[in-house]
Amino acid sequence: MSKLKFIAISGTTGVTENCYVYEYGNDIIVVDCGVGFPEPEMYGVDLVIPDFTYIKENKHKLKGILISHGHEDHLGALPFLLRDVKSDIYATRLVAGFIKEKFDDQKVPLPKLHVFDPEKDSLTLGVFRVTPFRVSHSVPDGVGFCIDTPEGKIFHVPDYKFDWTPVDGKPFDVAKASSLASDGVLALASDALGSTAAGYTESEKGIEDHINAIAEKAKSKILFTTISSNISRVKQALNVATRLKRKVCFIGRSIDRKSKIAESLGYLKYPHNLVINKKQALKLPDNQIMFIISGSYGQPGSALYRVATGEHEWLKLEEEDVVIFSADPAPPGSKTNVDFVVDKLIESGIDVHYYDIQENLHVSGHGCQGDIKMLVSIIKPRYLIPIGGSIRHMHAYKKLIIEMGLNGQNVFELGSGEIVEFEKGFARKSKEKVNVKDVLVDGLGVGDVGNVVLRDRQVLAKDGIAIALIQIDRTNNKLLADPEIISRGFVFEGKSAKFMNETAKKLKIFLESKQHLDKHLAKDHTIDFLEKFFYHKLERRPMILPVIVEV
Amino acid sequence: MSKLKFIAISGTTGVTENCYVYEYGNDIIVVDCGVGFPEPEMYGVDLVIPDFTYIKENKHKLKGILISHGHEDHLGALPFLLRDVKSDIYATRLVAGFIKEKFDDQKVPLPKLHVFDPEKDSLTLGVFRVTPFRVSHSVPDGVGFCIDTPEGKIFHVPDYKFDWTPVDGKPFDVAKASSLASDGVLALASDALGSTAAGYTESEKGIEDHINAIAEKAKSKILFTTISSNISRVKQALNVATRLKRKVCFIGRSIDRKSKIAESLGYLKYPHNLVINKKQALKLPDNQIMFIISGSYGQPGSALYRVATGEHEWLKLEEEDVVIFSADPAPPGSKTNVDFVVDKLIESGIDVHYYDIQENLHVSGHGCQGDIKMLVSIIKPRYLIPIGGSIRHMHAYKKLIIEMGLNGQNVFELGSGEIVEFEKGFARKSKEKVNVKDVLVDGLGVGDVGNVVLRDRQVLAKDGIAIALIQIDRTNNKLLADPEIISRGFVFEGKSAKFMNETAKKLKIFLESKQHLDKHLAKDHTIDFLEKFFYHKLERRPMILPVIVEV
Repeated sequence: MSKLKFIAISGTTGVTENCYVYEYGNDIIVVDCGVGFPEPEMYGVDLVIPDFTYIKENKHKLKGILISHGHEDHLGALPFLLRDVKSDIYATRLVAGFIKEKFDDQKVPLPKLHVFDPEKDSLTLGVFRVTPFRVSHSVPDGVGFCIDTPEGKIFHVPDYKFDWTPVDGKPFDVAKASSLASDGVLALASDALGSTAAGYTESEKGIEDHINAIAEKAKSKILFTTISSNISRVKQALNVATRLKRKVCFIGRSIDRKSKIAESLGYLKYPHNLVINKKQALKLPDNQIMFIISGSYGQPGSALYRVATGEHEWLKLEEEDVVIFSADPAPPGSKTNVDFVVDKLIESGIDVHYYDIQENLHVSGHGCQGDIKMLVSIIKPRYLIPIGGSIRHMHAYKKLIIEMGLNGQNVFELGSGEIVEFEKGFARKSKEKVNVKDVLVDGLGVGDVGNVVLRDRQVLAKDGIAIALIQIDRTNNKLLADPEIISRGFVFEGKSAKFMNETAKKLKIFLESKQHLDKHLAKDHTIDFLEKFFYHKLERRPMILPVIVEV
Repeated sequence: MSKLKFIAISGTTGVTENCYVYEYGNDIIVVDCGVGFPEPEMYGVDLVIPDFTYIKENKHKLKGILISHGHEDHLGALPFLLRDVKSDIYATRLVAGFIKEKFDDQKVPLPKLHVFDPEKDSLTLGVFRVTPFRVSHSVPDGVGFCIDTPEGKIFHVPDYKFDWTPVDGKPFDVAKASSLASDGVLALASDALGSTAAGYTESEKGIEDHINAIAEKAKSKILFTTISSNISRVKQALNVATRLKRKVCFIGRSIDRKSKIAESLGYLKYPHNLVINKKQALKLPDNQIMFIISGSYGQPGSALYRVATGEHEWLKLEEEDVVIFSADPAPPGSKTNVDFVVDKLIESGIDVHYYDIQENLHVSGHGCQGDIKMLVSIIKPRYLIPIGGSIRHMHAYKKLIIEMGLNGQNVFELGSGEIVEFEKGFARKSKEKVNVKDVLVDGLGVGDVGNVVLRDRQVLAKDGIAIALIQIDRTNNKLLADPEIISRGFVFEGKSAKFMNETAKKLKIFLESKQHLDKHLAKDHTIDFLEKFFYHKLERRPMILPVIVEV
């Protein structure tokens, strides 16, 4: 007899990179397929994606991929999986629009993409019967799934909060979720990211008034920035612009495209003629325009970054201009980017409204402790699986469950690749796990940068490299010419020429003292000598790379 | 006639690295001499120190160096300055203890170090008459200075807050400051770091109860961590241990030494026999011991880091152990370190009390908006200079001053090296400035790592390096042997051997197609070819370093 398996391919320990597998007998469905962002020491890495090995090995079982909402960490890795695996994808309308854009971007052919309506559709994927229901989040058209399995109902509720006054007018569909849950729920896998924060997450609604209060005092240009998928926030900025009789111009490819997709699908409605292009914008008086601009994390190269550093092709800021940040300050590793941009703007005399000054210009899209307890109370699951957070969030989630008087042993904190097996109404963590590793994307290379390359990059970053060119006379196994040492990222060669000459001389004496020098010995001796010499002189440990030429 | 100059050598735009010069005629005094911490992209850099060129050029004028309190960003650069310049240093008793330790550490001879008593001493340094007064901060024995100059009184008040119930029982000496200010104050240079936060900073006092509440529930070992100079917080932990009849063992060189200095100088008092050593600690039952341990920022290699990763020589954690973080979460650039440590601890089943869970285990040492307004109201200066923050803090500080109904034009926001000149009771920003640059410390090298080296490190970090060994026949200016390509941090050589062979072959064909190859041409062609080839194939841009051997 089959068991039901829930496999956390990734997404439980690293906040992003959501990807979960449900498997029963010969049927597999995948829920979400997102990218992760590299940690600061993963130098040069653009993205981290889930390890799809298990899914690829079982691709004959794959009945479909469900995407819960339109964020990169839930859909961004689809093209990487769909290069190697055939599967239909299921999503709401706006999410499908974002997915299409993603495949276009990556130049991967779009697979069959089914749009479902969370008000009325249900999907049958192999043995799984999936019923979506609306949730609130910081991007419209997000859903949770009630997955009917041969073992019972599992609720899968990624990023959500309870917002009773959402900008799109479509709150968490509690009635539907309750009704689906009414005949008993085996397990709930749900967003844990807010589990360390007390209380309830606030509604998006209030933000508009705060934006308005700042915008109505502005005497010149207004620049408004948020993350590009936050269509509701863009909608609020458009509302403010309409009220203040300002036109709006989008700057930055990503916010422009996402807003266009949302508009074309009916998720972003605004008066005719409100949005104008660059040419029209440049003709308008400064106090009649609002720019909605990409780069709320201060990403180097983004439109806002270029404006702040004065490198933007056509948008120049002047005193009296106002910049409004309406987003999280950025993930910890890259907060210095956005801090840099804010400081640059302030330095130019711009009036900047940003995260540090608490002006209520942003609320989280993730439910806090109150929201989590509410969801658990509505769904009443027997077992729980915290997802979408890190170790600390799973742990805090479990504490909440215990606080609610439930059994903490029914909460499964899963590492990447770990499996919960459900059988006859009971669940346990499997002793087996799926082998997964971080798959790093660097440029066009997927998975070719691993620990060895990263370790080298870390050494190179810290102290640079010294290359020693050693020529050996093959006839007598002696040094043929003076060693040459070239360095990069180690010491400034211009200033340190004397030091490098001294080093080369000392190395020569050392190598000449050796009776016999073949390729391998010359290499070992050179590394040995230079490592010690440099550490003694400078307390630095550059990478030492001998290039040995036998002549 | 002379003017009074206030020079911000550093410390106004980068939060740390405090160093200010007061100059009148032939007299200079320096206030504070601190280190800064490298930004994330300053790979391999250990510290940033102020540019002392101006002070060195004017060392004949130098009448003394005043240190306000015992934090690294106010005193850590002293040994670097005092290597080249002779000067007496003036500080309170505990601060002098920390300074002595710093010189010992750096193996620089200690200059004459004068201890002053902020209750009664005044100092005459050339034309300057300096009267210190107590302030509250997160390290005991901090002061502000009232500096009597020929142009009038300047108050210099670095890091402070108004804490009416400080742990050491010595609050901000408002009476003395008010009385010193009563006959008119020309200018106030004061801490701006809290200027973006509303309200008043809370007292340190309440924290002890929160530590106690957690500690009294602990059934096994307690590990308590804070930054090593936070003697008052250590005192609170000692109080809790005493109350709970636990012994205390210090782990980690820096917290152990700073606490010993504080104890020997009478700043840290505790019952005889409370503090025990490692050997005694290991003999005690787990529920009778509290470890006070370094590493509250999760610094790799710190004691707490090694405990968390299981690498510590003798301290092993078990379930039921409790770890209490009582410090800021760490500067933005290195928050991932401490996040890593917290996650590691949670993963081992330890009960961790850290910054994200709001348990009131830390308060800032810097005054918020309320404190800043209070100080300004007490001192009533004509001019103001925000210090100790960044551009955003200076800007927010200025906004506060305007909110108070004062003239914003009297607030000087200074970049590094900028000067305010005071003459006949009036102040203006000078058109001249002192040329300063970031001085980077890497290992034993001071100032030898500059932009070129850093840029190389950034390139190396991002995409690694490819070294091409090209041998040319000097007689006919042709390629002599097949090019060899070695890479580090670029692609994994094991897996990519085929790719590198293909590259070398293509490079060979390219170089053979050239009529004439001398050293320079071979170099240029190789760089040109490989840059394009690698970008085309992988969208990566490793550093290309041709090593040309003419035979």
